[in-house]
Amino acid sequence: MTRKLTPVPLTAEAFAPFGDVIEARGIPRQINYGVTQRFHDLAGIDAGDGRVSVNIFRSQPIDFPFVLKLMENHPLSSQGFVPLSGRPFIVVVAPAGPFDPAAVRAFLALPQQGVNFRKGTWHHFNLALEAQSDFLVIDREGPGPNCEEVTLEDTVLLAPQAGL
Amino acid sequence: MTRKLTPVPLTAEAFAPFGDVIEARGIPRQINYGVTQRFHDLAGIDAGDGRVSVNIFRSQPIDFPFVLKLMENHPLSSQGFVPLSGRPFIVVVAPAGPFDPAAVRAFLALPQQGVNFRKGTWHHFNLALEAQSDFLVIDREGPGPNCEEVTLEDTVLLAPQAGL
Repeated sequence: MTRKLTPVPLTAEAFAPFGDVIEARGIPRQINYGVTQRFHDLAGIDAGDGRVSVNIFRSQPIDFPFVLKLMENHPLSSQGFVPLSGRPFIVVVAPAGPFDPAAVRAFLALPQQGVNFRKGTWHHFNLALEAQSDFLVIDREGPGPNCEEVTLEDTVLLAPQAGL
Repeated sequence: MTRKLTPVPLTAEAFAPFGDVIEARGIPRQINYGVTQRFHDLAGIDAGDGRVSVNIFRSQPIDFPFVLKLMENHPLSSQGFVPLSGRPFIVVVAPAGPFDPAAVRAFLALPQQGVNFRKGTWHHFNLALEAQSDFLVIDREGPGPNCEEVTLEDTVLLAPQAGL
């Protein structure tokens, strides 16, 4: 069976079952004597028994249609991605727990939006668009295996939404 | 007494006494089936007895010459700044411990460079350049006061380096 998955706009509400959208949203605090607005505490960072690490992922862009072949999750920690190159990217997720291929969803993240996958949330690896792109990745460093993978049995084609 | 402080280029070596430079440096790991290069574990994030928080700071740019009036430090945690708007910024620091105005240094960070202030490092608040700029800030959320400030008694003028 082949099905097409078309990314929808990323919003905090739609993404809530999977984690946080990291973006300048809501009413900021004024700090630094008025020079800075602080959008506060935007993600539930969870390194479990490990420590928080900061990394840069440099990813090649995908071509459409893109065949989704696998998904992964990190059972011990959250994982956050914030775009550094000013380009949109695609986020493909499914709820934590036993993997349900019918529950896979795709979001289009704007250049000003990051995501933080909650511990256990199934997600595709980093899907950059347009050109090579850097992402700040807030991850866990610690003992024990922290990546589970599943292979998609049916063919799921990630199709561009209008405008991509 | 008035003195002029001119920012020098930010390098990991020069910044080592104060913390980490968060940038794509060194030999990355190949991950995601070859699609991504991972520049791994770039900063010593230290939330002490608190938890790590992720925030966005939206800062107005400074004008030159800029008078440095105060410095701050966070005695309980590190604090990391990664630029999201593709613009350079200025980092003003002094070593942790009793504040020494003669030891204040200024660095010019490129748009692809972030910094992580080690616990206790004296630093000026966020100094954006050119236009309003967003920064991802990796901070601590937890109990107890975590900001000490000093006022600079002599006048220190932050002067642009050539090209700014």
